[in-house]
Amino acid sequence: MSNPTAAMLVIGDEILSGRTRDANMYHLACALTKHGIDLTEVRVIADDPRAIAQTVRTLSDRYTHVFTSGGIGPTHDDITADNVARAFDTPIDVRSDARAILQAHYDRSGLEINEARLRMARIPAGATLIDNPISAAPGFTLGNVHVMAGVPAIFEAMLAGLLPTLTGGAPILSQSLEIHRGEGDIAGPLADLAARYPDLSFGSYPFQRNGAYGANIVIRGSKGAAVDAAMIELSGMFAE
Amino acid sequence: MSNPTAAMLVIGDEILSGRTRDANMYHLACALTKHGIDLTEVRVIADDPRAIAQTVRTLSDRYTHVFTSGGIGPTHDDITADNVARAFDTPIDVRSDARAILQAHYDRSGLEINEARLRMARIPAGATLIDNPISAAPGFTLGNVHVMAGVPAIFEAMLAGLLPTLTGGAPILSQSLEIHRGEGDIAGPLADLAARYPDLSFGSYPFQRNGAYGANIVIRGSKGAAVDAAMIELSGMFAE
Repeated sequence: MSNPTAAMLVIGDEILSGRTRDANMYHLACALTKHGIDLTEVRVIADDPRAIAQTVRTLSDRYTHVFTSGGIGPTHDDITADNVARAFDTPIDVRSDARAILQAHYDRSGLEINEARLRMARIPAGATLIDNPISAAPGFTLGNVHVMAGVPAIFEAMLAGLLPTLTGGAPILSQSLEIHRGEGDIAGPLADLAARYPDLSFGSYPFQRNGAYGANIVIRGSKGAAVDAAMIELSGMFAE
Repeated sequence: MSNPTAAMLVIGDEILSGRTRDANMYHLACALTKHGIDLTEVRVIADDPRAIAQTVRTLSDRYTHVFTSGGIGPTHDDITADNVARAFDTPIDVRSDARAILQAHYDRSGLEINEARLRMARIPAGATLIDNPISAAPGFTLGNVHVMAGVPAIFEAMLAGLLPTLTGGAPILSQSLEIHRGEGDIAGPLADLAARYPDLSFGSYPFQRNGAYGANIVIRGSKGAAVDAAMIELSGMFAE
């Protein structure tokens, strides 16, 4: 059985202009690997209604799960929820359950729930809410698309609640070895080793430190014994 | 005249598994914004031959430029060059100009140029080399696709040489204002302001600090006078 697959969709002009440095991709990649879901593709797109709807549709057809980040706040550039709804031809409006959550939050803070804040209660029909323990405004799951906030602390909190509800596969195990030779010397023996363990993946990540070349070789797979065996062989090849 | 557009394609299993945190996207986003090229989409995909060839073709058709990072080293998982060639139905082999560059580099280091290292001289027919002042192995430009290394120092050095050769547009100017109110209070007036300046883009990036909400409002556009005027209006609206 192969693991469930996933794509991530990061939505926001600010990432593409370099104004904001995305942190959610790295967080999601690590969390999904631990949970046994294979992140297979990431896309970053602008706050563009058609691009959002089309990309959601494409990724939703292709992968078990789609995780989005960004564009669900109260301002005019927060257009993710409406366009995810559009991708599924689903009606969207202020929903009473989401509104009640916001109302309770603003009552506690002594703030009025104005028109802008009410936009955050716009949830597509049939979607399940994703809890936001930080600033209340919920994310949602519609079909296989999980819509979450872009602010990293909120994205991470939403994901922490969501992930245990998703079926994972075998977590991918990995071991790495730092070899103090140039990749050009490692490449041949490494390719031979990789050919003998077709169920494992072998990556080579070069570095340069104090003027000397080296590489981290990473062996990954779902079977611990095979990863162990390959790593022992690799260590023997490059014993110093 | 609108600016040239660009997509970035990050290639590598290690980014998707969370083993490595990508740094090139942020660097490229900032560099292109300064150069007046609009980064419109980023994709991250695995070391998968078909995915690389198909995605290169799709992005090459859609944007003025495509910048790739990753997968041009000497190991078996470095398959970018071959699959970019495949995307354009172009033959690829060890090319004498690239081989001469590598030979000179390894002669200086006293290393032999073995079969693995020679893979880095595989360059598609008709491609222009991109200089690598750090570790010699060149990138290349084929059509509108610029193929560069994944190691951040090398990616940045290659880009620094490449970018001045590409025609840029009007650099996008931006100003930002930190407002100490919740986004829900900012959203209404901000949307009105945005509607009065249709040539500018207005972004709102919320934060939470010491328990208080706020947002950075960013106004962007190619006309400095318009950005100034909108910023003065914005400051007046939220004077404290």
